[in-house]
Amino acid sequence: MKLADLGEFGLIERITPGCVVESARVVKGIGDDCAVIRQEDPALWQLVTTDMLVEGVHFRREDLSPQQLGAKSLAVNLSDIAAMGGTPKDAFISLAISDEVSVEFVEGLYAGMKTMAAHHGVNLLGGDTTASLSGLVISITLTGNVRPEEVLLRSGAQVGDTIFVTGPLGDAAAGLHALLHGPVERDPAANLLVTRHLEPQPHLALARAIAATRLAHSMIDISDGLAADLGHICQQSGVGCLLEESLLPLSDELCSYCRHRGLNPLHLALGGGEDYVLLLTASPELARSPQLQHLALFPIGRIVAGAARMVRDRLGQVTPLSALGWDHFRR
Amino acid sequence: MKLADLGEFGLIERITPGCVVESARVVKGIGDDCAVIRQEDPALWQLVTTDMLVEGVHFRREDLSPQQLGAKSLAVNLSDIAAMGGTPKDAFISLAISDEVSVEFVEGLYAGMKTMAAHHGVNLLGGDTTASLSGLVISITLTGNVRPEEVLLRSGAQVGDTIFVTGPLGDAAAGLHALLHGPVERDPAANLLVTRHLEPQPHLALARAIAATRLAHSMIDISDGLAADLGHICQQSGVGCLLEESLLPLSDELCSYCRHRGLNPLHLALGGGEDYVLLLTASPELARSPQLQHLALFPIGRIVAGAARMVRDRLGQVTPLSALGWDHFRR
Repeated sequence: MKLADLGEFGLIERITPGCVVESARVVKGIGDDCAVIRQEDPALWQLVTTDMLVEGVHFRREDLSPQQLGAKSLAVNLSDIAAMGGTPKDAFISLAISDEVSVEFVEGLYAGMKTMAAHHGVNLLGGDTTASLSGLVISITLTGNVRPEEVLLRSGAQVGDTIFVTGPLGDAAAGLHALLHGPVERDPAANLLVTRHLEPQPHLALARAIAATRLAHSMIDISDGLAADLGHICQQSGVGCLLEESLLPLSDELCSYCRHRGLNPLHLALGGGEDYVLLLTASPELARSPQLQHLALFPIGRIVAGAARMVRDRLGQVTPLSALGWDHFRR
Repeated sequence: MKLADLGEFGLIERITPGCVVESARVVKGIGDDCAVIRQEDPALWQLVTTDMLVEGVHFRREDLSPQQLGAKSLAVNLSDIAAMGGTPKDAFISLAISDEVSVEFVEGLYAGMKTMAAHHGVNLLGGDTTASLSGLVISITLTGNVRPEEVLLRSGAQVGDTIFVTGPLGDAAAGLHALLHGPVERDPAANLLVTRHLEPQPHLALARAIAATRLAHSMIDISDGLAADLGHICQQSGVGCLLEESLLPLSDELCSYCRHRGLNPLHLALGGGEDYVLLLTASPELARSPQLQHLALFPIGRIVAGAARMVRDRLGQVTPLSALGWDHFRR
């Protein structure tokens, strides 16, 4: 059977049985932003996340500087720790490097990772470097920890929760579109969107502030797109959702870019990936929490009973929210 | 600059500065079999190791079954935990998979990993699966722990230590030679050597027994070859070594294969990688330790003052032990 027929999530479903043999220490294995593991010290759980970036699949080397690539490689892992409400600790970097990649490029890559790591108090503690027959592969594993009473799984959403995001949606997808479709030199909006795509900033401080209120019930970072990632929360929590189109935070740059290029910004906001903002569900009073005043927190809908995932447009019309996210193997 | 000119270890030297920003919790970062990290619980240190296997560089898919490939991918990481005297805990698997790899192959790969993991009480707790433009890339990160009083670093060798290995040397290199150079069907010795190459068994139980005696001072697993890996210990400990050629454990199969193919088994034993036996230095009384009776432990030489790394042949002639191990980037 071809992976293209089964899809990424179908594959994960097939390989998951039998993966856990020592279940006493496992809070959460496969299926969340991080694995969550009990330690000898009961006051802290360990978090581990891992991401692999493949040249030609996740990035084209000509689109970004080695520093940007290094920083982004680590940022996507930091974002996974943020999505659990955790604090990042140590990163382990494996690189497969082909002949045509220079020493200077690898040094630039590490410079970008070191800057991002130092900014968040993370050590780079080892890894593996090996040859590759074609292109560059970057695999990063990041550890962290979280207090058991503050961990935010995908499975915790409750009926009546307000759904929040921590930043504008669709910018990274528009930035990718701009990279793929043409000159952006004279278009400041497109330029900014490209930067959003190339330089995601993990929302770690905001995530810690949200977790500390203990008013949030579930969280995920938006890597596959709002529709797909909210779908993960709904599925794992056994709930439905109703989004309000009018509440989705869209940047001026996104709206301007979409106007010029004849795109629908809502499609990018719902289906576009890699924004790396946080998506969470929480008691409605979270919005009034004094610790979160002046922090970006946008209510965009609510969790409802049942399995339906819907979006209500500006005219009050309710339609199903299709899963528009990214799957690495499906065509 | 080309990586081929700098070499793997030259590259590591260049990228290491600035990697550690929170040094209080770091016992050992880059440069040993595992990173060693202090935890809130002072009675246990955490171990983390990571290895990346690239199709066409580390393996050819036609040489082994997916089960063998999965088991070996995990075994090389388990061997790194063993080399610290530790106990493995949880593995995280990232795969980049190209179009021509079937679902059944990936399931076989996981079946091999699960069998190896279950045998050592290890959970597979997550990872990442992504597309690849060519071939298969397997990146595994494995955690473990070790008691601070039992950890075995590369830097602990002491003048007067006996050097031991925990199994025969050169078998895996001969097995690789047999795979690359020709038919092995009617050659039982070659067959067994190929199996040694394809199915390395991590010496975890032996490593724990050695660490528990507290008579060993340094340890490493032999992945790059005896000469290179002993060189790592000597360099990091600031000592020299004198190996006794006559004491190197060579299997009957290795000697028989080398006789038929006109090879020098000593070259394979000193320079061949991937045996994944342990190399350690310890107080000479380790050999008489009652807990290690009936366990494979071969004295092969001793640690000496100075920086010279030498081997004494059967006639008493002493010659320098050149670094014959594997470097991924040098030609």
